[in-house]
Parts: sequence; structure tokens; C-alpha cells
Amino acid sequence: MKSITIIGAGLVGSLVAVYLAKRGYQVSVFERRPDMRTQRISAGRSINLALSDRGWKGIEGAGIKEDIAKVAIPMKGRIMHSVDGKQTFQQYGTDKQAIYSVSRGGINMALMDCAERYENIQFKFNQRCIDMNIETATAIFQDNETGEQSTVHSDCIIGADGAYSVVRGVLQMTDRFNYSQNYIEHGYKELTIPPINGGDFAMEKNALHIWPRSSYMLIALPNMDGSFTCTLFFPFEGNPSFASLRTDEDILNFFREHFPDAVEMMPTLLQDYKNNPTSSLITVRCFPWSYKDKVLLIGDAAHGIVPFFGQGMNCGFEDCSVLDELLNKYEDNEWESLFEEFETLRKPNSDAIAQLALENFVEMRDKVADKEFLLRKKIEAIAQEVQPKRFRSRYSMVSFSHIPYSESMKIAEEQDKYIDVIIRMPNINDMIGSEELRTQIAEALANLPERFGDYSSPV
Amino acid sequence: MKSITIIGAGLVGSLVAVYLAKRGYQVSVFERRPDMRTQRISAGRSINLALSDRGWKGIEGAGIKEDIAKVAIPMKGRIMHSVDGKQTFQQYGTDKQAIYSVSRGGINMALMDCAERYENIQFKFNQRCIDMNIETATAIFQDNETGEQSTVHSDCIIGADGAYSVVRGVLQMTDRFNYSQNYIEHGYKELTIPPINGGDFAMEKNALHIWPRSSYMLIALPNMDGSFTCTLFFPFEGNPSFASLRTDEDILNFFREHFPDAVEMMPTLLQDYKNNPTSSLITVRCFPWSYKDKVLLIGDAAHGIVPFFGQGMNCGFEDCSVLDELLNKYEDNEWESLFEEFETLRKPNSDAIAQLALENFVEMRDKVADKEFLLRKKIEAIAQEVQPKRFRSRYSMVSFSHIPYSESMKIAEEQDKYIDVIIRMPNINDMIGSEELRTQIAEALANLPERFGDYSSPV
Repeated sequence: MKSITIIGAGLVGSLVAVYLAKRGYQVSVFERRPDMRTQRISAGRSINLALSDRGWKGIEGAGIKEDIAKVAIPMKGRIMHSVDGKQTFQQYGTDKQAIYSVSRGGINMALMDCAERYENIQFKFNQRCIDMNIETATAIFQDNETGEQSTVHSDCIIGADGAYSVVRGVLQMTDRFNYSQNYIEHGYKELTIPPINGGDFAMEKNALHIWPRSSYMLIALPNMDGSFTCTLFFPFEGNPSFASLRTDEDILNFFREHFPDAVEMMPTLLQDYKNNPTSSLITVRCFPWSYKDKVLLIGDAAHGIVPFFGQGMNCGFEDCSVLDELLNKYEDNEWESLFEEFETLRKPNSDAIAQLALENFVEMRDKVADKEFLLRKKIEAIAQEVQPKRFRSRYSMVSFSHIPYSESMKIAEEQDKYIDVIIRMPNINDMIGSEELRTQIAEALANLPERFGDYSSPV
Repeated sequence: MKSITIIGAGLVGSLVAVYLAKRGYQVSVFERRPDMRTQRISAGRSINLALSDRGWKGIEGAGIKEDIAKVAIPMKGRIMHSVDGKQTFQQYGTDKQAIYSVSRGGINMALMDCAERYENIQFKFNQRCIDMNIETATAIFQDNETGEQSTVHSDCIIGADGAYSVVRGVLQMTDRFNYSQNYIEHGYKELTIPPINGGDFAMEKNALHIWPRSSYMLIALPNMDGSFTCTLFFPFEGNPSFASLRTDEDILNFFREHFPDAVEMMPTLLQDYKNNPTSSLITVRCFPWSYKDKVLLIGDAAHGIVPFFGQGMNCGFEDCSVLDELLNKYEDNEWESLFEEFETLRKPNSDAIAQLALENFVEMRDKVADKEFLLRKKIEAIAQEVQPKRFRSRYSMVSFSHIPYSESMKIAEEQDKYIDVIIRMPNINDMIGSEELRTQIAEALANLPERFGDYSSPV
């Protein structure tokens, strides 16, 4: 059986380790950081994530679905907070559908525990990859504590080392490797809303809260301890921006003016704002993702995306599911072909979700506060009810289906044209809720092909 | 006065050294390769280039225009070679306009000689930059011959080290640095047509020869010794491609079938094809191009483009002219602002020429063999004659003007719409050459603004 070196013990590295170990491969996972199970570390990255259907599938394959389900908080929709404190709820899918707020550390530790149950997996921490020979799948690591260097030979290296991947950096030096890294003008900073009354949630627990403010936004996701983790997505430069808020007074005045109801719930706002780092947001695209049968990139290392569709982890876990399916198809001596099929299958999908994620930022920070947009969402909800086999919203396909991202994007664009027509109907605002409109929408969408299963069943 | 470290003694590095030395700065130029004036080296890059107006301006600033003019061969237009040996001439501009075939090594050596006349410039060869501290503008070099390392402190580092820039690689590690490298599906290989009869050109000397074959092409540029340097632009994969021509027979059969008239002139075809490397073609885009007042990227290091508009060197030399103008505007303690204005001015223009260069590949390899395209070019030539102040072809603006590339692109797109109308006139083919058509074109274009000077004068 092949021996495999995985670089990175993050979410995707740990999960792919499980999938490979299940098949009997000898798996070594090298992680730059210390073991997060024995040492509290702040990775400086978002501490909670939204798990949706594609992510659950990956987790299920690792057999830890029940463990995670216990600590996952369903969010059934968005709650928009206007400046005057008014809240508007917008459901994500059906009554049974939700995305789930989970702790990054929690899932990662559960995945590592799960992986370590396999005798053929070993984890090595504090191991920074400093060089690599891609022809021979040899990697050189330096121990962060001792400074000692070690050389590791194996049959194949899997780079699961994130958006700033060292493995990808080595591939980037090879001829004809296409690569791009693009930062958006916004950064983010984490803030917190603690529990009240010794443990209660300060706001509705089963929702993702958004304070949309056109060019920027604040969001909040629930944690198991009754707190919310808030994230301010804010321009680096301009007015207002991270650069323009200089003094304590600037910060407090800004929050009081634009997020008055949130400020009430944030006793440590000023400390959080000043102590927590301001992080940037990158989109990474590259191709190919592999070198012969020796190296493969997976997860953020192959396709780093912005967080606005909540699909970074979900897409990485889907990589693992797809790789697992291909492992059924190819023999051990055919991994060059396996890797080629993998990258050919996944590249259009990771490009699509990268694009959708960028677009969803505009939707979240700006459009959700817009009346026409909310009307559109209502029409889409009706469309989905009256033509469940012919219509599924973009959000629903991405979050609650396994339809490839690129196909979801194409279908959504086709559907948009139909909704464009309906929304331009005279008196459309008055008709919302009427049986007549439901009939008209059902007729208008009758030309779309029957692509989907029953509304309630998974796609 | 500031001390400045320039990394790269190529075309742009040598020219910018001259501009800076003229102003009295202490300039050190570090070059990875040996001195090409004392040691014959093959850089593996195109050995001749097409110099056009923007390049001449840069050269003029260095005071070596006369030296280069002596060894530059004017090419007044394209000569297209069809498979049956038919040749079609298409003039680039007016009778007085031409682009010039020059030797890369010739210009580079002339620029270095010119630079060395300044006491405040020193060149250091065989010095590979291996590390850099951008905060302090400190660079570390390793001598390729002795292995010795040296640390160089100066006030500012200019990265003129080409499309695979080490300086850019260091900037790429900083936060929020946008970067992309994209390879096209084609590579290139140099071949040669030697002089005949002991020194005569085997084809028309004052033209750029093209064998357009739709998905690939062969071109030839004249050299001073009577030879032509040919370049085959050819897909890496597929059929036909570099990958598909495996045996001597494959190669010869392919050339005999598709370039029969060229084969006649290429006695060393097989050796050239097998001995010369196959090189890839990259577009590099990044932003920003500077770090505070400490580091600036220039030329290919900031914007590597494909060669199909013959503008790589010309664009790099225009960088030098623009930088020189900005040096008039800013004081020595304002270089952070200078660099910001430079990159803000140049970025849209380098993006535009990168795009135009990619598009021109399709024009050269495919469209020039197309009847409608040739008709279009004829209409454009008439338009330029009858409305010289209102119409200038895309090629003319790029090659024979100093109108910023991005503006040239916009103007050309606006003009295209007018030509689209004219070309759809009934009997347009019969009318070419008629006075009536000239009048109609003049009228049709009368709504375009008067943007240009007289046709014969520089823009």
C-alpha cells in the first residue's frame, strides 16, 4: 500500500487523512502548529463556521456526524438588523432546512481524534515544511521547537496546508502553473456578544444575524456557551474604514451610530476591537492542482475563497468526498490519472463557488436591506413551493444540495431570467400571498426542466 | 543623494539606471547572469524584438538613439504567407512609419555601455539576489562563481528582474498583494532562415513575415547579417502540437505540409527544432508595484506580457520615461508618493497592453488570413486617410503613438463600432478604392471627436 504524506492537520487535512486511512494507506500528517488538543492556540482565523449539506456529507464519511451534531447550532435563516433596531427574518430554505454554526476548533479536534483511531495514521506537530522535491515526493520539515530538520520520503504528498500553502508555492515554481491571489478591499475583525443572565443568548439563537450597512456589515453566529461571535467586515481604507477609526471615541461613536442595538450587547467592544487582529480576505485560484502522481493540492490550498457564502470548509469537505469516490475508480498505479480527473472535475466548481462567494458579499452587506431584493426572495420562495421540481434558489442549491457548484450557478442564472419577468408584473407587491400569484408563478416556470427531486428530499 | 540598488541588468534595468544616474543618484545594478559583453550567453529568450515609438522615446532619453538606429531594420508591414506560397502585404501605418527589428543583445549591450559612462553607476554581474528586507531596502546576493554572499544596503531597491522577478516574489509574501501568473496553451521555439548567396536576405527584408495557420503560426524577423529569426508559436498539447511531433519524420512532414515555402529556406530546420528549447508564454499581473519608498517594480517584473503586439520592451521603456517625468515632480523625500503615482498611472496601461497582446495573437495567427479582416484593415486605412484627426487604428495608436495603452484601447473600441457599420454596407467589396466610399467614410466618422494631430505628425 502507498505511504502518503499530508501537509496540514486542519479541517481538510484531517478529513482526507481519515478517508485514506480507511482504505489502508500509511498516512503521516505534518502540522506546522502545536496540537490544538493539548495547547490552546488562536489560529487568528474565524472561530465558528457554517456547516451545510456538502460539509455534513464529508463529516458523515468520517463517521463523526453524531459527535458534531451535538455541538452544532441550527440557523434557519438570516435576521437583518436595521439601524433603528428593527429585525427582519428571512428563512434559508424549508422549515426542516438549516445551516449549522459550529466551532472550527471543535470539528478539527473531533476529526483528529477520529483519525488517530486508525493505527495507520500518525500526526506530527510543530513540523514546518521548508522544502520539497516534487519528483520524488520528498518533503523536508523543521521542528519549530527543536529546530531539527527531517526528510520524509513517501509515495505521494497531499498539500492541505491552506490558502497560503507551502506545497502550492513549490508547484508555482514549475513551468506553466497558473496562479492568482486576489485580496478584496475589505478586512475583518472578530468581536463578541457574551451570554446574558449567566448563560442565555442575547438574541435569537437559531439564526445568522446581519447588520447590513451597504459598504460594510457586521454578522453574528451563535456559540454553544450562549455567546455570539461577531465579525465586522469593513474596508481597510476610506471613510469609514479600519484606517479612519483611530481613537477610542472614533470606534465607539461609529458603533453607536451604525450598530446601536449591537453595542448594547457588547460590553467588551473597545477591548475586542483594539486587541483582535484585522485580517485580510483572499481568493486563491490555481491550476493544475497536481504534479504527476506525486503531489496533490486539496481544500484552500487549491482554492481559497472569501467566507461570504459560508462554503470554504464545505467545499473542502466536498473535495474529500469526490476524491474518495475517485479512489474507487482508479488502481494504486493510476494516481496520475486520478489526480487529473480530480482537478478537472473540481476546478470549475471551485471557480464557481469563489465567484458566488464574492457576489454573496454584495448580497449580504447591501442587497438584504433592499426592498426589491426581499420581494425577489419572496417570489423565489413561492416558486420553490409551487414548482419544487423545476425551481430551487441559488442559496438552496449551494447550501442544501450536492449539485456541483458550477451547475448550480448555471441553473440559477437560467432561473433568474424567469424571476426577472415575474418581478416586473404590475401590482406584484399587492399580489404577494395571493393564490392567483402562486398560479401565475407555477405557469411561468412550467417551461423549466424538471431537474430536482421532491422539495423535501435531498437533491 | 539617494543610493539605489537595481536588480536586473536587462533592457529595463539598464535603461532606468541611466535615467537615475543622469540625476546624480548613486546606482548599483546587480545582474544574475555574467556580463553579456564579455561572455556569449544564450538567455533562452527571443533574440530579436520589434522596437516602436514608445521604445524609441525611452532609448532617446538615454542618448543612444543613433547607435541603435544603425542596427535597426525597419519593417513597414506584415507579409502573410499562405500554404500555397502566396504572399500578401499589409502596411502597418503610413509610408514613413515602421516598427524596427532589433537585436535584444545589441540594445542591452549598448544600454550597458551607455550606463557605464556615468561614474555613479556600477554593474555587478553573477550576483543572484537570494533574500531581501523590504523595510530597510537591504538585499542579499550570492556570487554565482565564488558562492560568496554579500549584503547591500541602499535607500531604495528597484526590481527590474523580469517576469520571474525575485523582488516581486518577496512583495508577494506581504499582506494584500494581488498577483496572477497565467500561461497560454501555446509555447514557442526559435528557428532560423540563413542568408543566401553569401549575405542576401532570402525574403523581403523590410517586413515582418507571418505564416498564419489558425491555431498556430510561424513568424520571421530580419537580422542585420541577412538572416531571419523565425519563431514557431505552437500548442503544447493536442494535434498538431509540440507533443504530437515526435520523430524527425513528424517534424519534417509537418513543416513541408504547412510551411512549404519556409522549409525551402531552412536548411537547419531539423537540428534547430530539436536543439532549441520550447519556451512557455506567461502573463504576469500584480498590484501594488511598490513598498513604501523602499521597493519599486518596473518592466516585466511588474507586468509580464505575451509578445504578440511586440510591446514588452516598448512598455518597459515607457515605464522608464514615465518614471523620469515623475522624478521632476517629486522631491527625494517624497518617493513613497512618487511610487504610488507611478503604479496608479501605469497599472491600467500595463493591464491594457497585456489584454491587447493576448488578443493580437488571435489576429496574427488566424484573422490575418481572413478576407473580412483584410477588408476591415483596408477600410481602416481609408478612415485614417480621410479623417486623420478623428481616426487612428488600434495598431497605429499602440505602435506609433504615446497615447496611453488603456486610452488607446478605449478609443479603438469606440472606433470599432463605426467600422462595424461601414463594413456592413452593401457592395462594400466593389466600392473599395472608389472616391464615393472615401466620402461616405469621411461622413460616417464625422461624429468622432478630433483627438489626433495631423496624420504624419507624432501623436
